[in-house]
Amino acid sequence: MKSSVPRPVTQLIEAFSRLPGVGPKSASRLTYHLLRSPEQEATSLAEAIQALRRETRFCSNCFNITGVDQDPCMVCLDPARNARAVCVVEEPLDVVALERTGQYDGRYHVLHGALSPVEGVGPEDLHIAELLVRIEREGIEEIILATNPTLEGEATAMYLKQQMAGKPLRITRLARGLPSGGDLEYADANTLSQALQGRVEF
Amino acid sequence: MKSSVPRPVTQLIEAFSRLPGVGPKSASRLTYHLLRSPEQEATSLAEAIQALRRETRFCSNCFNITGVDQDPCMVCLDPARNARAVCVVEEPLDVVALERTGQYDGRYHVLHGALSPVEGVGPEDLHIAELLVRIEREGIEEIILATNPTLEGEATAMYLKQQMAGKPLRITRLARGLPSGGDLEYADANTLSQALQGRVEF
Repeated sequence: MKSSVPRPVTQLIEAFSRLPGVGPKSASRLTYHLLRSPEQEATSLAEAIQALRRETRFCSNCFNITGVDQDPCMVCLDPARNARAVCVVEEPLDVVALERTGQYDGRYHVLHGALSPVEGVGPEDLHIAELLVRIEREGIEEIILATNPTLEGEATAMYLKQQMAGKPLRITRLARGLPSGGDLEYADANTLSQALQGRVEF
Repeated sequence: MKSSVPRPVTQLIEAFSRLPGVGPKSASRLTYHLLRSPEQEATSLAEAIQALRRETRFCSNCFNITGVDQDPCMVCLDPARNARAVCVVEEPLDVVALERTGQYDGRYHVLHGALSPVEGVGPEDLHIAELLVRIEREGIEEIILATNPTLEGEATAMYLKQQMAGKPLRITRLARGLPSGGDLEYADANTLSQALQGRVEF
């Protein structure tokens, strides 16, 4: 008996399976969905993937994503933004999340990772040297450490703080506490003790 | 403040979000993954999507997926398979699942859906007429109804049985019962009562 599945189908299933969080079952479902959907949907997805790499680059100043012909990025160039504050994040997605709040008008610096001895990620693998240069060159006054509330994120924040010691900087980090809309009953002990330690007058 | 996310990024997030089971958060994660992964990974995914539509078609006999230059499909043409038995399924993915068992050596017929008055899917929207033609033309002796164990799948099986009444055919359907590896305690009442009704000598 020969296989009943044509090669282009198995190839796309394999390509989808390589994406994070996509198991073989979802990969099959996505593939068969694209087989049945209007041809336009498959074409526009393929083109969007190609355009992503062709039409974007990382900003040479803050290392966030920017258009291929837009370097430095629009955030770094925007005169309406506070050039004295830099929010340090691990990934470009973190910038998107912070921008969504509409509460921050400074600049960013994307490290592209966090320190992780286990995975062999050291300071030289992250855009840390460039951050230290920026502090001098741009006359930065406040650094907001917005690395993830994980072991790696905390270690990275710690390391950055040490590197910036002695500089005339205000160094802050995002507050820890109960997530909005969450349920106290389901908060883990770490979150809860941080919420207690950080309690504010009401 | 101008948006910090370049258009190619938002466009790919939107394209991913249109896929079934991919919410806006996973769509972002997939997009940012492709930004950081080796360019080869993004390229091969885009090419696999394009090849899928360019290099496949539906078999004009059984309506399963086949290579664009392979019609009828390899299952329909395979002389090693039993040409007298046809297993009727809703989707091409169901063929993949059945082939994986290695237990079936007949042919298939893919309906491309199930009857659903609610969603406006009638018999003329499925490849039912073609199945009835095949029964005569191919001298089929057994029809295995392998539609899904859902309301729509059962209704479709019922309808097919009526359409085939009076023909010299053995009509069977897949057994209902406890799923292998499952836990009796967690089986729903429907499954359990079907397992009871279908109990066999031990």
